[in-house]
Parts: sequence; structure tokens; C-alpha cells
Amino acid sequence: MRSDPSRLSFEIVASDGDARRGLLNTAHGPVETPAFVPLATNGAVRGMSSREVAGFGYSMVLGNTYHLLVSPGPDRIAEAGGLHEFMSWDGALITDSGGFQVFSLAHGSVADEIKGTGRRVRGQAETLSIEEEGVRFRSYRDGSELMLSPEISMAVQAALGSDIALIFDECTPFNADRDYTARSTERTHRWLDRCLRWHDENGPASQAVYGIVQGGTWEDLRKESAEAVAAASIDGIAIGGTLGRDKDEMAEVLGMTVPVLPVETPKHLLGIGEVDDLMKGVALGLDTFDCAVPTRLARHGMAIAPSPETRFRIDLRKSRMSGDRRPMVEGCPCVACSDYDRDYINYVSRAEELTAVRLLVDHNLVYMERLMSGAREAISAGRFGRYAELVLSGSSPWEAS
Amino acid sequence: MRSDPSRLSFEIVASDGDARRGLLNTAHGPVETPAFVPLATNGAVRGMSSREVAGFGYSMVLGNTYHLLVSPGPDRIAEAGGLHEFMSWDGALITDSGGFQVFSLAHGSVADEIKGTGRRVRGQAETLSIEEEGVRFRSYRDGSELMLSPEISMAVQAALGSDIALIFDECTPFNADRDYTARSTERTHRWLDRCLRWHDENGPASQAVYGIVQGGTWEDLRKESAEAVAAASIDGIAIGGTLGRDKDEMAEVLGMTVPVLPVETPKHLLGIGEVDDLMKGVALGLDTFDCAVPTRLARHGMAIAPSPETRFRIDLRKSRMSGDRRPMVEGCPCVACSDYDRDYINYVSRAEELTAVRLLVDHNLVYMERLMSGAREAISAGRFGRYAELVLSGSSPWEAS
Repeated sequence: MRSDPSRLSFEIVASDGDARRGLLNTAHGPVETPAFVPLATNGAVRGMSSREVAGFGYSMVLGNTYHLLVSPGPDRIAEAGGLHEFMSWDGALITDSGGFQVFSLAHGSVADEIKGTGRRVRGQAETLSIEEEGVRFRSYRDGSELMLSPEISMAVQAALGSDIALIFDECTPFNADRDYTARSTERTHRWLDRCLRWHDENGPASQAVYGIVQGGTWEDLRKESAEAVAAASIDGIAIGGTLGRDKDEMAEVLGMTVPVLPVETPKHLLGIGEVDDLMKGVALGLDTFDCAVPTRLARHGMAIAPSPETRFRIDLRKSRMSGDRRPMVEGCPCVACSDYDRDYINYVSRAEELTAVRLLVDHNLVYMERLMSGAREAISAGRFGRYAELVLSGSSPWEAS
Repeated sequence: MRSDPSRLSFEIVASDGDARRGLLNTAHGPVETPAFVPLATNGAVRGMSSREVAGFGYSMVLGNTYHLLVSPGPDRIAEAGGLHEFMSWDGALITDSGGFQVFSLAHGSVADEIKGTGRRVRGQAETLSIEEEGVRFRSYRDGSELMLSPEISMAVQAALGSDIALIFDECTPFNADRDYTARSTERTHRWLDRCLRWHDENGPASQAVYGIVQGGTWEDLRKESAEAVAAASIDGIAIGGTLGRDKDEMAEVLGMTVPVLPVETPKHLLGIGEVDDLMKGVALGLDTFDCAVPTRLARHGMAIAPSPETRFRIDLRKSRMSGDRRPMVEGCPCVACSDYDRDYINYVSRAEELTAVRLLVDHNLVYMERLMSGAREAISAGRFGRYAELVLSGSSPWEAS
């Protein structure tokens, strides 16, 4: 562990079982944890101004290195004074390494995820080669050949000037076999060393670096990886790679990984953010979580809701929403639930009015922030178990608080 | 004139030449005039909540009868308690008659206008027949056959419960000949009578009705139409139909129409809302204006700006905006100009991020409201001529004030 408080410090202010409430002090201010971290993939949270995202109560967002490397490119963002300045975001920023995207393209699993709506894709996104040096891939914007390697990823993240950079790793898919996963995890560890070497010599003094635990779904590989990462000179730990085929397997993989990690280190769970997953992650002692779910659901007309039987989401486009005079979620303080009923949101969603996406992003982000602030309060009050139980059985965050 | 103050009264509070500042008292509160009226075509101002639109300073928006008839239909809106309730808008609402859209489809001129982004069009929108009784057309949503007539248009607008309804008229295209225009204008007058008859018997007591002056670009026809409308039992007058091929011809047509109308009647100019047109309309004594321009420009990456040489708009997608550290418009108080530079908006616009449209709609609506509040203040101060001159020569509304 490096734990250089000049760039990042983490203070556990309350514990409740393995769940803990903390304060992650970044170069751009403190982040109260456990926290959900909205995605600002292209330097913008879908449909929102940065001012609004801060107004919802968020103090950290995540920018995607892969997307920002492809366009507008690190030079242009550096010229703007870094990603904070570029996107007018005064809070904390975490950037991923781009590894997830280039490997997803190679493994063919989540290309849709990367391409977003698909409308931005002009060229054919593809990964050209995976070697020890790094990964060659084609820009989805203009077809040009680009490269990501440990050094390039760190250099891009340095140019972006994020408060927390993630090391460049191979994100193994859920269908990779043990042998592939073992070799890949070893390479991720070699890449971890290269990332840290580059960052020690060239990285911004105020930028913290998180290592990433890989190892697929194999207990010994996860443990080995957790130990390798924990032993390295890193400021925090992210858990990446496949977490299995379903939520049970995810719980299993997290259950074999988190306990091996040092308690006092801040821990981030990559790409996970459904309501039940957050409650389980917090219970295990994870601190921050990023996920495209709240904004992606909004694009598809869906609202996050205290509805365990439908994966904590309701589909506003369904015809049964027509004529429904209730707000999307009773008691939700967001503008959509305060001012409109399901009937209206059903109509504007089906009419593909921008206002629909806007209202749904608003709701989903307000809901997620309330879910996590409720968790923080519950941990302080020593009742996180009860809070999670209520949430998982269908209470809204404010009912459960 | 009917001038029933229980449903609408208009008070001229200051005059400056023909320009006047007024207070249009509707059943849903006063509207300070001259005023720009944003479009809420499908019951939503593009990308905005109604709360935000009110926050920009607007007290009236326009709903499109054609669109709302096609979907969600007047019954569903009536069940919601009317369009105000449906879209959570407490201010004044004006609805058009649907005439513009069905005739535009028939004349093939502005189908794109009607279809919006085109993404909502599932069936083939087309007008099937134009007869004395009314107009048959096909729904662009599901291809079903629908009808608009004077009575149906008024009944739909009654169900919507707008504060100001417009009579059902034929909107003649700019390429119609004199003979067609003369016959069409006479039919519009017969339809005016049918609209008023229906409204007298069935219309909501609190709903005002505006007549519409047609007559194409022919002085005698415009005059005849102006006199026919002014003589009818209406609460206000809208100027519709073609205003010619270009801005000079528009000035000419308005110059031959407005002076024939009674001074004390509130006057609305339909579908016109570019910066220079607004200044010219106000100078002639027009009071309210609606137009898709601010929201449509936003969709195409354009911001309204004090730039007469480029039609008062700047294109944020142009590559020369990349690296430009200036706000879109110096001194503009909108969130886009307060928090972001042209470089960022260039990037998010080209990346087709929803945030781009959002920021541009925000800017364009803030700009238009400042333009009109500046005009109101200038009229009170007896310096509207100077204000308009400054705006037309490239001052922003706040510089010109």
C-alpha cells in the first residue's frame, strides 16, 4: 500500500458488520462512502449538466478513458486544463483504464455497451491484437488504429487529470477457461507494475492509483490476485473481471475476494450498480460502485423503483402505465415524481421526447443517491442489515431509512 | 370583438411607436407581452421539465393540436384533467388548430417540421382529402384515418383545455396562386364562423378564441381577411398563412395586415421566431410569437447568438469551435454559457450526447426570453427603436438593454 494522504486518504467513520461508512478524501474534495458513482462516459452524464449532477448530491463521477482517448483525445482535454475543467466538474473524478472496453471488443461480449446508442459508431470498432506490450484497436469514430498499453493508459489518465486512475488490466470474460484466466491475471499483475512505474515517474502528484483484482471465478486465482494487488504500492483497490454468470455467482466471487483484501483500503466495484447488488456490495465492505444502469435504463424508458419482483425497475413504456395517476415512485423527491404521473411519462417515453429520458435520468440518479445516503445513515445508526433487508424486500430508500 | 374579460383581457401598459408592452390576462395567469412562446408540441418542451421552462421566465407555451390528437388523443388528456395537468404546466397555454400541419402535409411543404426528428414516424403521414367539411388525414403513428374540421379542432382544443384556442384555418402555401388563395381564405372565414358557433355552444367558459388572418401575399385578400376576422366575435387575432418567400416579403405582408387590425386586440404571429423577425414584429405592434426555431436549432447543434451575419445563430459543430475557450455568448446567464466553453459544446454536440441538446435548448430559451424582456423594458423606456437597432446590428439583449 502506498497511502499517500497528499493525494488520497480514506477514513472509516463508522462500521456495521463488514459494512462501513467512510470519507474518501480526493484532490477534488471528499466523497462520502458508500457511494454510487455515475458515468460521465464522454465527459457528460447523459442529458445532465455537471451542476445538476452535483445538485443531486453526487461528489464523484467516472470518465471512460477508452471513449475520451478515441474522442476528443487526451491532448484536447489537457489543453482545456484537464477533464474537470473540460466538463466543468468541481468534484472528484475517477477514470477507468480502457481495459474493459478493448477486451470486451476482443471477447465480443459487450460491444453494445461501448457503442452506447450505436449512433456514434461511424467506423467498425474492433480489437486488432492483444500482446504483452498492449492492445491495438480500431477507433469507432474514424477507423484509425489506436493502442492502449499500461503506459499509454496511464499517460491518457494523467492528461485527463482524474483524481483516481485505474491500472490497465485485462478484463477476462465469463466464458474464459481457467488456464486463460490464470495467464491473463498474471499479465494483469505485470501490467500493474508497469502502470505504477510509469505513474511514479510521470503521473500527476495529486492523482491516486487503484489496482484491479482479476482472477475470474476461481477462488485461488482471485486470492492470488487480491494478494498481488494488495502488496503493490497502490492507493485503493478495484474489483474487476467477470463476476460470474448470475447474481449468486457474483456474491460467491465477491465473498472469496473481499475478505482477502486489507480492511483499511478503499475498495471500488467496477461496473456493478443494480439496487440489490449495491446492498450486497456494501454489506461486504465495498465503498464505491460505478454502473451505466441508471442512465441506460432511462434511455429505455425505465425507472429504478422499489420493486424486487421486477429487478428494481419499472417500464414506463408498458401500456398499463397509460392512465396511471401515481408518481413513478411514491415519495421520491425528484422532479419527475414530484411533478408528473406515470401516465405522462408513459406518453413522452413512447413519443420519444427528449424530456422523457431527461426525467428518467433525473429520477434514477436521485434514487441511487438516496439509496446510498440511506445506507450511510443506516451504517452510522448500526442498522444497515435492517435497511438492506427493507430495501431488498421492496421499501424505497426513504421508507427504509 | 368579443372581449370577455372573464376569459381573456389585454391591457396595453406602454407604447413606443406601434410597439406596445402589454399584459395578457389568461385563465392561467398573466403573460407579459411582447412574449416569445416556446413550443410544447407533444406536451413537452424539448428536453425540459415544465418547471424549468417556467424558471426561464416563460408564462405561456404552445401545444400542437395535430400532434396531441394523433397521440395520446384528447380523451386521455381530458382524463388527466386537461393539458395543463397532464404536462404539469401552471402557466398559460395556447393551442393551435392543427390546420397548419394537415395542410402542410397536403401541400408537401413542411412534412419534416411535423415529423420532428423523424424517429417518431411509424406510419406514412399524409392528407387524404380536403373538403368543405374538413380534412381527412392519416395518423403518422399507426396509419389510422383521422379527421380535422372546425368542430373537431375546437372539440379537441376544448378537451385540451388551453387558455387560448385558435380557429381551424387553411394554411395556404407560398406557391398557391391568387385564385386558390382567395377561395381558401373565404373557406377559412366560413370555418371561423363554424368554430365560433361550436365554441359558443360547447367551449369551456374560460377558453379564449383567436381568429386567424389568411390571404397569402395579396394585399386585398389580407385586408379582406383582416376585416372579416376583426369583425368576428373573437378574443384575439393570429396572423397565419404564407408570409412570402423571404424576410422582405414577410415585412411587406405584415405591413399590409397589421395596420388594418384593431389596435387594442392582442395579436399573435404564428410560427415566426428568428431574432430579427421578432424585433420587426414587435415594432409593428405584434404581441406574441411562437416558433420551433430555438429547440430545432438546438437539435442541430446551433445556438442563438448576437451574430446578424450568420442569421443570429452559431454552429457549435463546426471544427473551428474546437479549442475555442469562449462561452457561446459572452454574458449570457444560461447554464451552458456560465459553465462551459464552445470547445466542450462542440465536442458533446459532435458526440451526439443528450447533454449537448439539453444545454443548447437551455441557452436558446434563455436567450429568447431575455430578448423579449429586453424589448418590454425598452418599450416602457421609450427606446424600443434603439434596442431593436442594437440587437439587429449584433448586440446581445443584455448589451442592448
